[in-house]
Amino acid sequence: MFYIIGLGLCDEKDVTIRGLEAIKGSSRIYLEAYTSILMVQKEKLEVFYEKPLILADRDMVETESDEILANADKEDVSLLVVGDPFGKLTLDLAGQQTHTDIILRARALGIPIRVIHNASIMNAVGVCGLQLYNFGQTVSLVFFTDTWKPDSFYDRIKENTDLGLHTLVLLDIKVKEQSEENLARGRKIYEPPRYMSIRQAVSQLIEIESLRQTGTLSPDTTLAVALSRVGGGNDNQGIVAGTLTDLVNHPEDAFGDPLHSLVIVGKRLHHLEVEYAQEFAVDLERWRNTAKQVYGCALD
Amino acid sequence: MFYIIGLGLCDEKDVTIRGLEAIKGSSRIYLEAYTSILMVQKEKLEVFYEKPLILADRDMVETESDEILANADKEDVSLLVVGDPFGKLTLDLAGQQTHTDIILRARALGIPIRVIHNASIMNAVGVCGLQLYNFGQTVSLVFFTDTWKPDSFYDRIKENTDLGLHTLVLLDIKVKEQSEENLARGRKIYEPPRYMSIRQAVSQLIEIESLRQTGTLSPDTTLAVALSRVGGGNDNQGIVAGTLTDLVNHPEDAFGDPLHSLVIVGKRLHHLEVEYAQEFAVDLERWRNTAKQVYGCALD
Repeated sequence: MFYIIGLGLCDEKDVTIRGLEAIKGSSRIYLEAYTSILMVQKEKLEVFYEKPLILADRDMVETESDEILANADKEDVSLLVVGDPFGKLTLDLAGQQTHTDIILRARALGIPIRVIHNASIMNAVGVCGLQLYNFGQTVSLVFFTDTWKPDSFYDRIKENTDLGLHTLVLLDIKVKEQSEENLARGRKIYEPPRYMSIRQAVSQLIEIESLRQTGTLSPDTTLAVALSRVGGGNDNQGIVAGTLTDLVNHPEDAFGDPLHSLVIVGKRLHHLEVEYAQEFAVDLERWRNTAKQVYGCALD
Repeated sequence: MFYIIGLGLCDEKDVTIRGLEAIKGSSRIYLEAYTSILMVQKEKLEVFYEKPLILADRDMVETESDEILANADKEDVSLLVVGDPFGKLTLDLAGQQTHTDIILRARALGIPIRVIHNASIMNAVGVCGLQLYNFGQTVSLVFFTDTWKPDSFYDRIKENTDLGLHTLVLLDIKVKEQSEENLARGRKIYEPPRYMSIRQAVSQLIEIESLRQTGTLSPDTTLAVALSRVGGGNDNQGIVAGTLTDLVNHPEDAFGDPLHSLVIVGKRLHHLEVEYAQEFAVDLERWRNTAKQVYGCALD
């Protein structure tokens, strides 16, 4: 059996009992390297599972899938991934695509497959108080460079906001990046991982709005919620709510360590969502007043 | 501490290690009665957790929250819910609303709260091969009666399909229903649980399309995917893909036991999604031809 096991959002204790049993029964266990974004190290997972883990980076899952799948028709092999096997962390990681490929390959080889689900940011985002059925499509935001500013996310956000829906924005991660020089010289030397910050994300959103000028986003009247380390417990998880201006002015270190995500609040906002999320507001009065006056929420 | 713990989608083994530890350390554990839709009985959960569970129906979670929360500032109390605490099963269950209320109440009482996430249908639906970032808003479909056919879901599906997005349709569940006679006489006698079938769901969709006639849904050319018992493993989980007509003609018992959900496929369909899901097609040729000719997918 080939198991693809979601590890959930935080640390070694977020695996399910079913997932842990599959891990313990596996003869080989691959840990997808994006798990550098899990809030726990490989070694800690190995101690907890009492099993050695083989680090599998993106290239390996894509190009060496036959090696990963070897003998999985006779013995159990597991691939561990952050969140849910079908959840998504960022577009850049293209996690789902990758897993689709290896599952299609396993099928072609006649290997039985079992997916063990877990939480992903796409459902856990509800913890901020915005209701999941008010969310439209999820978008990803990649790091802008001086010469490359892909902005198709803006059209997606506009589609959602035109319908009054919230948008979950997943922020870019660079985990195995080469400098231009190293890339040119073919040196497999990688830069340290980079995670897009809330401030950078909001700045990029405002930059594209100022180019497009459709009124989809407004720094002072568009409400948003920033989430950090969702699932990490009250002492670790961070939620900050406010206008885009509030978030871009919020101290960078107050958001804490990655992973960060952002929600753009849509106009179908319900007053209960406002009241639930106001606990996280940078400025309670501005949060409520904007919800009332700009979003038309029925608040006292 | 007041814990709200997601149990995941299937049985007693889908709880996370973190969730299980919280359960074991709790002095009182409430099991939300919607868990009748979990594929496991309360007794089996109690044996597995080695803890007695208190059944809490919807009324109790809504109206007796103070009883549930009693002493939670001094000892640990857990509320167990199917899926993720912020996921949604059907609109009718209004799970999130309920949990929002009890969390707001706990906050007001100064009780610390910890949410333990798990998989929900809203991310696990990716198992059918349709990519999560191609989904728009999620809708719920309630049982029609002769006199009551609420159809606002249709507008939501239209909004999604106009954008080319997939729609996850959650199907109604009636778990604590009274007959009109029992209701009139104030007798607290409840009907057996009812779960909307795929066939009924598709029939209701087609019924509203034939009234509205916007061309949002077409029995013979709209593709859809029916999901049963997601997370239940290969021997249990069911996925069936085809046109709406394919699904409505599919033998009722072939979908198996509840819970069922439905995905309406949007026009942004990618050829890899088609190829992944074709394994589940009622009629492979029709699935591929419709994807190619109606959806414009680049298939060989």
